[in-house]
Amino acid sequence: MLEGYKGKALEILSSIGADIGDRIVIIKPSISIEGILMPSYSLSNDIIVIKMDNGYNIGISVKDSKVALKEKKKVKTEKLNEGEIGKSEIKIISTGGTIVSSIEYDTGAVRPALTTEEIIRFMPEIKEIGKIDAEVLFSILSENMTPEHWIAIANAIGKAFKDENIGVVVAHGTDTMSYTAAALAFSLKLPGPVVLVGSQRSSDRPSSDAAINLYSSVLLAKVGKFGEVVVNMHGESSDSYTLVHRGVKVRKMHTSRRDAFQSINDRPLAKVIWKDKKVEMLRSDYIPKKELNVDAKFDNRVFLLKYYPGLDDSFLDFLVNSKKVRGIIVEGTGLGHTSTQLVDIFRKATRDGIFVGMASQCIMGRVNMNVYTTGRLLQEAGIVPLEDMLPEVALVKLMWVLAHEQDIERIKTKMLENMVGEINPRHEIDFFPRWYHGD
Amino acid sequence: MLEGYKGKALEILSSIGADIGDRIVIIKPSISIEGILMPSYSLSNDIIVIKMDNGYNIGISVKDSKVALKEKKKVKTEKLNEGEIGKSEIKIISTGGTIVSSIEYDTGAVRPALTTEEIIRFMPEIKEIGKIDAEVLFSILSENMTPEHWIAIANAIGKAFKDENIGVVVAHGTDTMSYTAAALAFSLKLPGPVVLVGSQRSSDRPSSDAAINLYSSVLLAKVGKFGEVVVNMHGESSDSYTLVHRGVKVRKMHTSRRDAFQSINDRPLAKVIWKDKKVEMLRSDYIPKKELNVDAKFDNRVFLLKYYPGLDDSFLDFLVNSKKVRGIIVEGTGLGHTSTQLVDIFRKATRDGIFVGMASQCIMGRVNMNVYTTGRLLQEAGIVPLEDMLPEVALVKLMWVLAHEQDIERIKTKMLENMVGEINPRHEIDFFPRWYHGD
Repeated sequence: MLEGYKGKALEILSSIGADIGDRIVIIKPSISIEGILMPSYSLSNDIIVIKMDNGYNIGISVKDSKVALKEKKKVKTEKLNEGEIGKSEIKIISTGGTIVSSIEYDTGAVRPALTTEEIIRFMPEIKEIGKIDAEVLFSILSENMTPEHWIAIANAIGKAFKDENIGVVVAHGTDTMSYTAAALAFSLKLPGPVVLVGSQRSSDRPSSDAAINLYSSVLLAKVGKFGEVVVNMHGESSDSYTLVHRGVKVRKMHTSRRDAFQSINDRPLAKVIWKDKKVEMLRSDYIPKKELNVDAKFDNRVFLLKYYPGLDDSFLDFLVNSKKVRGIIVEGTGLGHTSTQLVDIFRKATRDGIFVGMASQCIMGRVNMNVYTTGRLLQEAGIVPLEDMLPEVALVKLMWVLAHEQDIERIKTKMLENMVGEINPRHEIDFFPRWYHGD
Repeated sequence: MLEGYKGKALEILSSIGADIGDRIVIIKPSISIEGILMPSYSLSNDIIVIKMDNGYNIGISVKDSKVALKEKKKVKTEKLNEGEIGKSEIKIISTGGTIVSSIEYDTGAVRPALTTEEIIRFMPEIKEIGKIDAEVLFSILSENMTPEHWIAIANAIGKAFKDENIGVVVAHGTDTMSYTAAALAFSLKLPGPVVLVGSQRSSDRPSSDAAINLYSSVLLAKVGKFGEVVVNMHGESSDSYTLVHRGVKVRKMHTSRRDAFQSINDRPLAKVIWKDKKVEMLRSDYIPKKELNVDAKFDNRVFLLKYYPGLDDSFLDFLVNSKKVRGIIVEGTGLGHTSTQLVDIFRKATRDGIFVGMASQCIMGRVNMNVYTTGRLLQEAGIVPLEDMLPEVALVKLMWVLAHEQDIERIKTKMLENMVGEINPRHEIDFFPRWYHGD
């Protein structure tokens, strides 16, 4: 299947019998470019996309070009040894993202192809941890995740534990990984670890974090003593350890660094030192293993409103009067404020039964709406201060709560109940990171 | 004037001849509470607000109460010495916020009352720096700032330089200080420093940062070699130094810490070591002093859309079809993404002449929409990647650009032009702060 191709490009590729994954060459008057045929993302009918040997994808116009097939895709498989076959201990559920494409690229596979064999060929040391079993649930970039995907992942995790796996690894794109982690955390009671893992750099780059992140996640899924949803990613810019973050207290804080994921208003749960095959717990207050329960329902009639000076009230008016929202998370300024001009609209919203909760765009710290007049006025209008919850986590929690409760007082109670550690009642001074100030 | 009072409370206070700032006592059957009468923020007709001697405000119902006047407000003034009178060198423009209320509280003044004498009484060491002149432009909490206020501040700064001051200090609430700093930075060419300063803790608390922040800002306004808009706030949790951040590269990163303001994707410009009366430059690439130019216009027909999984398209549809927006800043995930489902709506928006720019909700790092398919599709739909600009700064810049340009190509060019250092072409590894991981 020539995924994504149409028009002239499709015609040429079909005529030479090329498939995605085959090695082709495109010959132009002045240059010829060789590489692996990739699915097309282009809107144009004339573009062929190939992955060059340097790892980069390039789109090339077929105009004035001759296209030839060099080599059919090799289907390589790694034969498993006898001891590796049989009931798995660790389930790897793959949903897509750079980590999956890393494995695909390294193993020569193209698109959804994360078999157990491929994972073991990619990182043979994984075999030593325990018996793994890989499943491709879907293969999407994480910016395309929706609450429906969260439900499918939650169910797949439930099934994996019912099949007597002791831990589950979810391979996921990094863009929305923390949203998914929060959604799973609110939905699952767990008999073992659920480890979300991704990769910030694909494996065609020497600095790829795919192998270490995957290895340490499988290890953590095997030996982790906790029954909660965590994110396991590079802990610092070198390869020394990965950090295990509580799924409701983690955020992607950098667009490209390998250590982009950091615990916010919280300490990481553990470190995995992959070279020593060691999980070092940093806290003892993890959620213990419990009997499995899957309860994944989300109501996405919500909105995340980030306040800024000059915000036109009419947007908020539309939102409140649209009958399309049952809840709003306001990402306010400072301790949890917006312009007092919005107080009346918020009062109307809460009187109409819309839940309005306040988090802070500062990201770090806790909202406190008792210090300044504005906070008190907003509270009088019915806005609920959401402690130190991350705005994104508050939003996901609200989607979950709205799918489970109808009564506004019950919704408020649930939003302020510390379900899985999303509220940290006590902040320590070193939660705030240290910026370098040239000393 | 009994600001904010109405009904029963107003009646009682009038009958005893009390004014805001007077010392009163409220006697209840079981308790009597004494304090300074404050303006009311309550929606109730029965509440009197007093500041108690411990510095906290309390609202007390007049029901079953007797209210008596204890002492009229003292109007204290500090006589200035002869050498301190005459043409000022440093202008302090006060707009409100905790730093102003700190001074008011300490000096016994209540609301807009930031005279030169009061500032000197609050922090006598300021006299030694140079001749200061204070002006109350307005007195609002910064969450109530609007683009109209930005214009008033820009004009007041322009006037101060025309009056031959060599530097200007703007006392401002911390909630939206970075938005105002960006707005001023895009609006002003400056013959000297403009220093925005606030306070995270009011002066009735022993940990107040008001005095040090104000002192070091006045010093910086006097000796700063640059002609740009900066934010000067506590640099770390102790009192050793303040940090001088470029106004377009700073963000409030904590709801309550004194060192909440940090440079993002950038290094601070300078440190002020107030005890040594020393400004230590950390960089030499500051904007040099220029001839004054004030060009403050903003078009707030913009929207800041923070993307999240499950976002209902209909809100974006409303936005695009409302004819109320000329520009949208998308706070996308990761390197600058949204769900590909939104591509068509964004394409419609840009075809309708709406500018759509992409920043990242990661906050740190740079967007790069060439790495993944989604980024390329969004670019094909006309979305402009905005490098490493902070989402909030990109929004303020867009308001400024839209007020100056009509043609969409000119708007795009301006948005990508590095006007005042809002784009940092080169990131250093230590821009990313270090989280403590329990080592």
